This record gives sequence, structure tokens and C-alpha cells, in this order.
Amino acid sequence: MGPDPAVAAVRLAVRRAIDDLPEGTPLLVACSGGADSLALAAAVAFEAPRAGRNAGGVTVDHGLQEGSAHVADRVVRAMRDLGLDPAGSVTVTVDGDGGPENAARQARYAALDRTAERLGATVLLGHTLDDQAETVLLGLARGSGARSLAGMPPAFQRGDVHYVRPFLDLDRATTRRACMVMGLEPWEDPHNEDPAYTRVRVRQQVLPALEKALGPGVPAALARTARLLRDDADALDALADRAYTDALHDEELEVTALEGLPRAVRTRVLRRAALFAGSPAGTLAAVHVDELDRLVTGWHGQRHVDLPGGLRAFRRQGRLRFERRGS
Amino acid sequence: MGPDPAVAAVRLAVRRAIDDLPEGTPLLVACSGGADSLALAAAVAFEAPRAGRNAGGVTVDHGLQEGSAHVADRVVRAMRDLGLDPAGSVTVTVDGDGGPENAARQARYAALDRTAERLGATVLLGHTLDDQAETVLLGLARGSGARSLAGMPPAFQRGDVHYVRPFLDLDRATTRRACMVMGLEPWEDPHNEDPAYTRVRVRQQVLPALEKALGPGVPAALARTARLLRDDADALDALADRAYTDALHDEELEVTALEGLPRAVRTRVLRRAALFAGSPAGTLAAVHVDELDRLVTGWHGQRHVDLPGGLRAFRRQGRLRFERRGS
Repeated sequence: MGPDPAVAAVRLAVRRAIDDLPEGTPLLVACSGGADSLALAAAVAFEAPRAGRNAGGVTVDHGLQEGSAHVADRVVRAMRDLGLDPAGSVTVTVDGDGGPENAARQARYAALDRTAERLGATVLLGHTLDDQAETVLLGLARGSGARSLAGMPPAFQRGDVHYVRPFLDLDRATTRRACMVMGLEPWEDPHNEDPAYTRVRVRQQVLPALEKALGPGVPAALARTARLLRDDADALDALADRAYTDALHDEELEVTALEGLPRAVRTRVLRRAALFAGSPAGTLAAVHVDELDRLVTGWHGQRHVDLPGGLRAFRRQGRLRFERRGS
Repeated sequence: MGPDPAVAAVRLAVRRAIDDLPEGTPLLVACSGGADSLALAAAVAFEAPRAGRNAGGVTVDHGLQEGSAHVADRVVRAMRDLGLDPAGSVTVTVDGDGGPENAARQARYAALDRTAERLGATVLLGHTLDDQAETVLLGLARGSGARSLAGMPPAFQRGDVHYVRPFLDLDRATTRRACMVMGLEPWEDPHNEDPAYTRVRVRQQVLPALEKALGPGVPAALARTARLLRDDADALDALADRAYTDALHDEELEVTALEGLPRAVRTRVLRRAALFAGSPAGTLAAVHVDELDRLVTGWHGQRHVDLPGGLRAFRRQGRLRFERRGS
């Protein structure tokens, strides 16, 4: 008799993910003690030796909650019991900007970077299909196109450290069930239930409303959407890179080189050019890019387009150029 | 003193939309009597003479509700009072398949096609930014990529008839206010409040939950998303058309021609090829296209991939070919 289907599923996901890694690379599980990363720790502890790899685990103590050191100790013990070695905790100070969630994330990744670098390891993260669905919905509110709906990538690089998310196609119910079957007791982070966080409101209110209105399978549909739109964004960004280089002469863009491009590519080129000229990514919006596009495709002698960051775009002698306002 | 801002907004939207039309084309407002299309009727009646165009109106009586003929008469009177000429109603029989909403839509568009053809007119539809947001959310559940999130196009063609949606950037609150200010009394279709319809559930439950969780501006963000993803889908579909033609030889696809394509383009080519071979659009899913893609990019001697519609795809001698199963 084989293992429970949930246990088989988490192991298979890990096996597939680590099969793609360079032979012999050690693994490092980032484990909060929640069901997702605890199931990941267990699956990695099971699969790594079979793949001839060393596997350790690390938990990050953000020091934000009463008793967080105690939680970290418990998680380290759980990882050791599973056979992860080395297993340890890292304490970080959360004092960055961009909101508390962002500051905690920055501090966490910095700590993971350092630990992984020291071990020469690839980091495994426990994000699931449900996390992906939430991320897509959070991106919807920005309304800034394919990239903001592309969710979390299944693999990415930070400096020298490679990160992998083996569970992006598995739902949270599977990781919970895997923990239960394996007799592992996840730590329930009270932050995960606190509606002060946008992500928690998306999880508790928006996804249930979507499933009630549209039927079951919404998280999977959102995750599929993320994957498809990530491919689209990659393809169009690559085309825009090339088109931008082709259109660029003496820091100006040739209008004739832009005119024939599909709008999806042309607007990406214009956005790039505005960012490169110094317009800040956070405030340069679709409406500004549309105005720039009208200098190309709807020109009737407009004097200029004002952009965030004190910039101004002109069309002169068949070229677009960006200048500081008042310069 | 100018008109109320809401009235000015609906008129400006109509002015912009009809400015783009060939000179002299008559206009035909499709009017249900609801706030959106009633505001459209009023704005068109105001703007058309100033643009030297004739403008009429038509309402479609679906015969699905008690007293629908009476509603149609009221709408025709309202259009006449506004100055639309000709103004009339068309009664249709809703008996198509694909669910009651779809059948009603098919019957409605067929009637609009006929009326517009007779008059040689361009049809104006009252869909707003809120309708667009709902359409995007309805597409999310499909999880089938950019095209399903691209919402309704601002203009489209059915046979010889051109359709335009001047209000896609205006919200419903503006059309309601415009009606109120102009003393027009919209007809409240009870279907618009009936949670038996998926669209109504999206409007009543999902959008409020999204705005509560993510903050205001969600419908506008969704509408912006639709516009951007429509551009993306158009660009990638055009690339895929070209790549498909380039890869095709004797009804087979050259693997070498596919390998170098970005995944977003390659998967579109593979989907096209499967559809062309006879796999039905409704059941050919991302998972099948992924399997096909593995014949190209992850080939390790797989025998074949089974597809909906009794098809089977093979890779042989550097080419993909599709055959009927058992043939």
C-alpha cells in the first residue's frame, strides 16, 4: 500500500522540482511552521536522500509577535525530527519601509539569501496554488496588465541564490491533509487570520465570493491565468527590448520605428523609455503611456506630454525625446 | 453654465465615438430602456444632428417577461421623445441553445444586425465600465489566458454591421446620474437583480467583496486590465498566425520552427494546429496544449498525446502531425 494521496502529491511535487536542479546542489527549506512549509519540509526530508542531496531547513524569526522565539524553536525541532540537517533559526529585525508586510518580506528574503549563500543551497518555498490565486487577485487591483497578473514565478534568482516553489500547482487542502496524515502539527500564524492584511481579506472574503458566484475551481483558474500571462509578458517584454534598441538613436526614439509595432509592444517600448528617462515606476501609469502613444499614432501637432518625475516628452523631426521640465 | 458633469460626460463619450466613424453614417442606438442605454439614446439624440448624422433607435422585445411588449412601447416612446427617428421595437423568439442568457443575446444581435443592415447604420451599445469589469471577472473563471480577460471590444463587426460601445470608460453611476438630471426614467429590468444569473452574482457579491478587500477603483482597474490584455492577445495572436504558417508543411508542423519561439507564441501555434485538426475549442484545454508542448520542448520519445475530439498528436521525423484516433 502506497502513502496517502496527499503525501504522495507533496512528495511528487518536490521530486519534480528537485529533478530540474543541478546535480548535487544541497536544498534548504524555508519553513514558517505553517501547513504548507511543514509539508514541504517533510517531503524534502523524504525525497532529498533518495536524490542524493543534502537538505537543511531554516525558519525566520521576525520578532514581531509575542513568543516568536518559542515558535521558532518548535519549528527547528520539527525540522530536525524530520531529518533536515542543518536546521536552525535566524532572527531578523523588521525595519524596512513600504508597509509592514513588505518590510517583513524584505528582511525574510535577506536572511534566506545569507543562509543559502553560506550553504551553497537552493531555497525551497512552500507557496501553494491558493497563495498564487491570492497574488493574482492582489495584482488585479493595480490594473497594470499582464505582468501584475502573472503571480509568483515557480523559480527565480536573487543574486547568487536560486529559489524554487514546488507547490504552486498544489492546493492548501493537500498540504494540510499531508501534515495531518504524517502526524505533523502546523503552527497557525494569527497573522493569517487578521483582516488588517489585504491578503487575508482576499482569502477570507473575495475568493469565497468568487467561488460562490462562478463555481468551484476559481483558485486553479487564477493560477492557470498567472502562468499563461507570465508567458505572455515574457514574450512581449523580449519583443519590446528588441524594438526599443532598434528605435533608439542618440537617446531619442524614431517615430517610424514605433509606428509599425503592435500596440502591446509599442506601449511597452514607450513605458521603458519614460522609465529610462527618469519617470518613477510607481507613478508612471497607463494613462501617461497612452498620451505618449498619441504622440506616435495620433499626432496632430501636440506640443508635449507631461510625465511624473518632472519629465516632458516632445515629438520633433520624427523623433520622441524626453527632457526635464523647465530645462 | 454648461450641462451637469454627468450629462457632459455621456455626450463627450458619444462625440468621440462618432467622430471616428465614416462621415455621414447613420447611427442606431440599441436601447433596453435601462439607465445605460437610455443615457446613450439621449446623448446620441443630442450629438448626432451636430455631427450631421441621422440617428434612430431600436429596442428588442425578447418576449421573456410578462408585459415586455408594454416595456418596449415605453422605450420606443422615450426614444421618439428624445428625437431619435426612426424609433421602433423588434420582437424576437429566444429559442437558441447555450443557456438562456446566450440564447437571448444571439436573438438580440441577430435582430440588431437586420435592423442596422436595413438602415445602413452603425449600432451603438450602452455597455459601461462596470459591465466591462463584470465581463473580466466572468472570464477569470475560465482561466484560459489573455483573450478570456480581454472583456468586450470598444468596436467590432458582425457581417456588414459595425458596432460601437462609447461608454466603456464611463461608470454606471454616471449614466444613472445623467438620466436623473435629464429627467429620464430608466426601466429597471428585474433580470438585473436576479441572482440566478452569474453576471448578477458577480455584480452583487464579487465586486463589492473585491472593493472592500482591495479598496475603491476595482472596476476601473479591471477595465484597464481588459484593454491591456486585449492588446497583448492581438499582438501574440498575430505572431502566432505568422509562426503557424511558417511551421506548416504538408499539414505537419516542423519542430525546429517551433523550438525557438517564445512559449506564449508556441502554445498559441499548437492550440491553433489542434483546433484546425478538429479538436473542439470548448474542450481543448491548457493541459492538452502543455502536453503538446512537451512533444516539442520536453521530448524523450513520447508515443503520442491524446486530444479531445478523438485526435492524437505524434512527433515523427522532426514533425508534429495530428491523426484521428484509431485511424
